[in-house]
Amino acid sequence: MGIKVGVLGAKGRVGSAVIAGVNASADLELVAEIDQNDSLSTLTEKGAEVIVDFTTPAAVMGNLEYCIAHGIHCVVGTTGFDDARYNQVREWLTATENVGVLIAPNFAISAVLTMAFARQAAPFFESAEVVEYHHPNKLDAPSGTAIKTAQGIAEARREAGMGAVPDATDQALDGARGADVDGVNVHAVRMTGMVAHEEVIFGTTDQSLTIRQDSYGRDSFVPGVLTGVRQVADHPGLTVGLDKYLGL
Amino acid sequence: MGIKVGVLGAKGRVGSAVIAGVNASADLELVAEIDQNDSLSTLTEKGAEVIVDFTTPAAVMGNLEYCIAHGIHCVVGTTGFDDARYNQVREWLTATENVGVLIAPNFAISAVLTMAFARQAAPFFESAEVVEYHHPNKLDAPSGTAIKTAQGIAEARREAGMGAVPDATDQALDGARGADVDGVNVHAVRMTGMVAHEEVIFGTTDQSLTIRQDSYGRDSFVPGVLTGVRQVADHPGLTVGLDKYLGL
Amino acid sequence: MGIKVGVLGAKGRVGSAVIAGVNASADLELVAEIDQNDSLSTLTEKGAEVIVDFTTPAAVMGNLEYCIAHGIHCVVGTTGFDDARYNQVREWLTATENVGVLIAPNFAISAVLTMAFARQAAPFFESAEVVEYHHPNKLDAPSGTAIKTAQGIAEARREAGMGAVPDATDQALDGARGADVDGVNVHAVRMTGMVAHEEVIFGTTDQSLTIRQDSYGRDSFVPGVLTGVRQVADHPGLTVGLDKYLGL
Amino acid sequence: MGIKVGVLGAKGRVGSAVIAGVNASADLELVAEIDQNDSLSTLTEKGAEVIVDFTTPAAVMGNLEYCIAHGIHCVVGTTGFDDARYNQVREWLTATENVGVLIAPNFAISAVLTMAFARQAAPFFESAEVVEYHHPNKLDAPSGTAIKTAQGIAEARREAGMGAVPDATDQALDGARGADVDGVNVHAVRMTGMVAHEEVIFGTTDQSLTIRQDSYGRDSFVPGVLTGVRQVADHPGLTVGLDKYLGL
Repeated sequence: MGIKVGVLGAKGRVGSAVIAGVNASADLELVAEIDQNDSLSTLTEKGAEVIVDFTTPAAVMGNLEYCIAHGIHCVVGTTGFDDARYNQVREWLTATENVGVLIAPNFAISAVLTMAFARQAAPFFESAEVVEYHHPNKLDAPSGTAIKTAQGIAEARREAGMGAVPDATDQALDGARGADVDGVNVHAVRMTGMVAHEEVIFGTTDQSLTIRQDSYGRDSFVPGVLTGVRQVADHPGLTVGLDKYLGL
Repeated sequence: MGIKVGVLGAKGRVGSAVIAGVNASADLELVAEIDQNDSLSTLTEKGAEVIVDFTTPAAVMGNLEYCIAHGIHCVVGTTGFDDARYNQVREWLTATENVGVLIAPNFAISAVLTMAFARQAAPFFESAEVVEYHHPNKLDAPSGTAIKTAQGIAEARREAGMGAVPDATDQALDGARGADVDGVNVHAVRMTGMVAHEEVIFGTTDQSLTIRQDSYGRDSFVPGVLTGVRQVADHPGLTVGLDKYLGL
Repeated sequence: MGIKVGVLGAKGRVGSAVIAGVNASADLELVAEIDQNDSLSTLTEKGAEVIVDFTTPAAVMGNLEYCIAHGIHCVVGTTGFDDARYNQVREWLTATENVGVLIAPNFAISAVLTMAFARQAAPFFESAEVVEYHHPNKLDAPSGTAIKTAQGIAEARREAGMGAVPDATDQALDGARGADVDGVNVHAVRMTGMVAHEEVIFGTTDQSLTIRQDSYGRDSFVPGVLTGVRQVADHPGLTVGLDKYLGL
Repeated sequence: MGIKVGVLGAKGRVGSAVIAGVNASADLELVAEIDQNDSLSTLTEKGAEVIVDFTTPAAVMGNLEYCIAHGIHCVVGTTGFDDARYNQVREWLTATENVGVLIAPNFAISAVLTMAFARQAAPFFESAEVVEYHHPNKLDAPSGTAIKTAQGIAEARREAGMGAVPDATDQALDGARGADVDGVNVHAVRMTGMVAHEEVIFGTTDQSLTIRQDSYGRDSFVPGVLTGVRQVADHPGLTVGLDKYLGL
């Protein structure tokens, strides 16, 4: 038996990986694979309880309107959401009591946990820095995830009333101390062979704490999506960000 | 101004480090240093608001009785507590409304956080193992901390209804896969030059999460003790374990 | 221009990756792709200077006999070599003066360097241990590479007249201290999401040295093969093991 | 029995640590402890075969002249050497055939090996970066050791005819990609609790190689000094740099 799942964007690379993940899970049952030109009515005919949407900004809102109206929970990794879209989803959800919608920019559970743990640890350490490692074809440095992680640390430090990190450097080569993101230094390494890796380091008297996330391949979002599928029915309304599902 | 602090066991190595930590903190004020043969009445005369006790199992209960009776909060790292002692402390505390007592076996904040994060992360990863590293003079393997960490992971997995970790090994040298602690493999490395280090590794599809704690010296307990001193007044009653103070 | 290369076993997964590597190298020119049923005479017709052989134990000796006789250098990753086969190759090589043949069990250059550096470092550190990490479908523990690494360290220690590693452990859970490989402890971690990783750790007074190799994907042998192709003409005769080409 | 050792600068912190190291070594025998105002003739009276000099730039040349003239080998960690001083030492050495003098700026054997291995590995990897970690009281960034390591990598790349490291970054926060040292990016992390740590990372197709050195305390120079003491008699003449003794 298990939860009946429909996948939208089923023929895309991401959708295919989600389908493989659902099929490999004894507690989930794949009932519908929808791609462009397929009718959404298949979802209701097959009794889908949860859909996963990795489609396009142009398609996703129509998909959500249909699913919410038909009482189907939604796990969404499609990009392009802004406040106007979130508010539209919330409005649709007012017409129903129990439907849950999870929209998340990042389903890589190790990255989501790294960010969450970094915020939790931040108030207890004088020093905090972030080092991220990516393949050399990446265009931006640091990565968006590393910037967000540093901002989370900075915010947690401010809330705890902490001052600046200690740093006596008075003679430095340009760039040696990394980029300053809200007072947290962030370093970006570019390395052939690597995929995507992030390390957050905290230090205080005689000790350090390191939280490191390694992505070795392109399917690192799958476990987070499946976590979303399993829990979305227990989170009615709109939830933005997978971290809210992790019981942190 | 700041919180008025008394240190019991002031002449011991640990007590001396606590004193140095208090003196280095602008928000804390050292008002009393008590060692064997010193009278506890100094604490009340000097207006101590919080005491730190790193004394002996023989001395600590008398110290706590006195401090609780005089409305002084207590942060305790002395060993030798069992249920009978905890219950005695709770009984003393019933006579007062606002006194807080924190008793913790481990004040190394990076180790405490590692254990707490490991429990939180455990339900989201099929695989989990622990590797600890210590100097070669250590007598037990794995360390008590590593065993506790593995037990916490195992408990979190059970609560989440997870089965055994995947492991296809069918041909192994004796000991290669480590010690089995409640189904979590634990490996102990002994290395001249190292101090005390623990690494918890979690894995799921295409990714891993590593939480690592490094102790570089003997004073790694100090930041945790000072965190206790700052927060004990906000936690009336008996608290066992620093993790309860970390807002996790 | 560049070195003219022929690939034998061209349609296999490994051969295809070698072809892609040759095509991506400005200093190499692919002149022949040979698979089952293709004639070796293509190699001479196209003027191949070096061949790469990732075929089968059944095919490789015929390939080598032909190439050596025609003055073509050989880089061989095919398995199944024993002393009899090595001697046969040496005999064929006596008939020519300048042909080089490299036969290597492992072309992953980071793994080959890790093993070589581990041997070099071993005499200078009291402590040495190996930790390897693989996906949980691996059948043997520790990996063959980790065992070989430990044996190399043990040999280097013996040659330097060193005694046993220091280890005061007198109370251990079964397996906690890993497998004993010639007196060097080896630990095997099995982790969903990981590929193949090896860490060698050395320790002495107040310091440690860590040499770590990470394989993130299946093509990690390619750079080593291309190194072989570029250097084989400078190493006439039979060479066993890529490490001989690395100038260590 | 063992090698008869004299220590100059015996009352300094470094000299004391060397003395402890000699005393802990069965193959070495401490015969003289010399400090300011002590006469060097004690060395000859006691039959010192090797001296260790951690004194001052003002004292060291006189010490060397005396020892070389009396056929005593010298292991020197004192700073302040320039070409003029090296030449002076070489001139004194011409008068004797067998005396060895080792002058080294860095005796931390793990750091010396890291630099040497980095040079050896460099030609085989497209990508190379250095990350160093120090306590936040350090004034310069990156550390001198990290700069030298990067320069060694850059030189090895040039000698191998390699071009620039691959890096597609076209949108970066200032400093994110580190300091550019001869084309090798170097990142400096400053972290309360840490001591001195250096990580060199190399990457090529589907793999990386990491060489990491950790100093946990202030006595990390001792094993290198003792290695020098044991080998100096086998290296007549002037040697600059401990790496020449490591058989690399």
